[in-house]
Amino acid sequence: MGHSQPALTLRPSSRAEFLRLDAEDPLAPVREEFDLPAELIYLDGNSLGAMPREARNRLSEATTQWAHGLISSWNDAGWAEAPTRVGDKIGRLLGARPSEVVMGDNTSVNLYKALDAALSLHRGGAILTDEQNFPTDLYVAEAVAKKWGVELRRVPRNQLGEAIQHGVAVVTATHVDYRTGHMLEMREFTKAAHDAGALFVWDLCHSAGAVPLDLNGADADLAVGCTYKFLNGGPGAPAYLFAARRFHGDLNNPIPGWFGHDQPFDFDSGYRPAPDARRFLTGTPAILSVASLVLADLLIDQVRRQSEGFGLELASPEDPATRGSQVSFRHPNAYGIVRALAEVGVVGDHRPPDIARFGLTPLYTRYVDMWDAAEKLSEVLRQRTYLAPRFAVKAGVP
Amino acid sequence: MGHSQPALTLRPSSRAEFLRLDAEDPLAPVREEFDLPAELIYLDGNSLGAMPREARNRLSEATTQWAHGLISSWNDAGWAEAPTRVGDKIGRLLGARPSEVVMGDNTSVNLYKALDAALSLHRGGAILTDEQNFPTDLYVAEAVAKKWGVELRRVPRNQLGEAIQHGVAVVTATHVDYRTGHMLEMREFTKAAHDAGALFVWDLCHSAGAVPLDLNGADADLAVGCTYKFLNGGPGAPAYLFAARRFHGDLNNPIPGWFGHDQPFDFDSGYRPAPDARRFLTGTPAILSVASLVLADLLIDQVRRQSEGFGLELASPEDPATRGSQVSFRHPNAYGIVRALAEVGVVGDHRPPDIARFGLTPLYTRYVDMWDAAEKLSEVLRQRTYLAPRFAVKAGVP
Repeated sequence: MGHSQPALTLRPSSRAEFLRLDAEDPLAPVREEFDLPAELIYLDGNSLGAMPREARNRLSEATTQWAHGLISSWNDAGWAEAPTRVGDKIGRLLGARPSEVVMGDNTSVNLYKALDAALSLHRGGAILTDEQNFPTDLYVAEAVAKKWGVELRRVPRNQLGEAIQHGVAVVTATHVDYRTGHMLEMREFTKAAHDAGALFVWDLCHSAGAVPLDLNGADADLAVGCTYKFLNGGPGAPAYLFAARRFHGDLNNPIPGWFGHDQPFDFDSGYRPAPDARRFLTGTPAILSVASLVLADLLIDQVRRQSEGFGLELASPEDPATRGSQVSFRHPNAYGIVRALAEVGVVGDHRPPDIARFGLTPLYTRYVDMWDAAEKLSEVLRQRTYLAPRFAVKAGVP
Repeated sequence: MGHSQPALTLRPSSRAEFLRLDAEDPLAPVREEFDLPAELIYLDGNSLGAMPREARNRLSEATTQWAHGLISSWNDAGWAEAPTRVGDKIGRLLGARPSEVVMGDNTSVNLYKALDAALSLHRGGAILTDEQNFPTDLYVAEAVAKKWGVELRRVPRNQLGEAIQHGVAVVTATHVDYRTGHMLEMREFTKAAHDAGALFVWDLCHSAGAVPLDLNGADADLAVGCTYKFLNGGPGAPAYLFAARRFHGDLNNPIPGWFGHDQPFDFDSGYRPAPDARRFLTGTPAILSVASLVLADLLIDQVRRQSEGFGLELASPEDPATRGSQVSFRHPNAYGIVRALAEVGVVGDHRPPDIARFGLTPLYTRYVDMWDAAEKLSEVLRQRTYLAPRFAVKAGVP
């Protein structure tokens, strides 16, 4: 938990001190609301969030609506409005106003819609992106650039700011980098895009639910993200799309479907888009599926103390202001290290080629997890268990 | 039930005789595998299929995989392979070979991908479709035609065959019409398209699980469909896309995402499509959400006997060979009739402007349901309960 106190000034240096921080943490009881194995140190909530216990109840409700309400549940149980009802709830976490966020499809499809809509407003210019962006974002950006016959410019993430210049129509980047956790300053980058006459499309997959977001405050244009990481929506939970209200009349969904129609149940053979972000919906929605700065500092601090000289290199920014809710280290044996840690109850993940990544989810990550994880990492490094033949085969997870 | 005997030759004319048909039906026990209210006559499985009791168990399994397997479930529980594993299972119902069907997204998004891929192979010609096609299909077809700068030709369904001519690049139609249940002859229409140098993209939403399908036997090119109707996958269950093996090397997914990459977990920044239909996947898959001819004849027969002279007009084909698993009637008060029937336990649905539609799902529709539904329809028509003010407000469901 841990974002409620300036704990770092305490410089805890024993397991007992970490345990005391947990005991004093007002957020500590929230961990109980998640169905997590008690002993597990789960530092992978930025890949798949843990299951809230309430999820079982909600799924049970939804199956009863299906079994007994049957087709009437589209109205009586509010299924038809779920994309906007849940979208407005998520929107409050994003700093969006009502009707600016809709739930549907997955992040990749929403990014396709958002990039295409942005490019159709600002024609002729290039798409600019971070060359280390999440692969699916790069594939989608390339497809949209090809569709419109414009250039896709890929630049290193640390040169993105200076590359936002005239001739760029749309900039797209992941707010928090999935490998290193590096976080871009949203307001500043959005303003740079606007000053250059471009729109910015943000991917918030690794931000929402973990770091403060204020899309309207940053004057953001368009954004997309998933809900199965820090938002704990479950595997395959629908993604979301944010469109600022000022564009609602002009944005064009490249995949216009019946749920984006102004009156879906009129079964109108001509498309008339909904007046707000709902126009970005396409098909039938999925119903069965909807401050960690201190923790990160503590983890970095403990890993440095306990694993000095074993070749680990911090891949995340030192500065909490430019770091999302994760800590990543580089090591030539990162894959084996992550697998060996999992065997002793510390779940992080590996991102090729050499990143070991640990996600910090304030709602269920304990202070003492930072101590224990650092200690177990140190053991793995000292004993070189990561070299065991069983860790030689690579098999990743998203 | 019902497709196992040539029951129509029996001409049953009393409720007792319908009950006997149920008693003799070897498929009758299958209804028990669905969680359906005992007294309900559910004739809307072509809008939302009933819930198999097993669905609760599978959802419970999946939530346990999420809660306790967490991120490792992508490998250990086989989530990552679900789109192809389930796709191959559905493929057997469609007459497809392994690796020709993938699960993902919704029908509208899959139709966008299939139409776009087809048009990118056969450039320059028009898209031809049925002007009464399901609205979302029309919206998507229009968007794809606009994207490629080609014409969208809409013709009446009964003129589709003659409109398949040189200059048409892609034909798309729903195999079984959602309003009337009219069914196109798949092999014949596919051949006509091929003879004209075109590809055919089928929408199987109202076919799969209800009428025999043999995509390979019909030499089909591409097809899409949903799984929440006759396949009983639940609200928002993922849709599927079929691509014939002969095209696998050439088809281009317009929304290339990481799950369609040959090696998604390499996190490769360059897109390299999977060698088979998996290339049509885009984003992270949704994990929590996967012979009625005689019945129809009996329903038509009983409605005619009991409701003669009340203005009902059969909107479905008389010929079972060109009729899907539904019976539709036209009536100026179709909406009120459907609502009044629901109040007395017969669930069908209304499609604007004047269609009352009854879906027949052999797995859980009883013979005696045909008798009872016809009798209750007759009562509604005789007593004109459909004119009650409470049925005046229109509120549809998909």
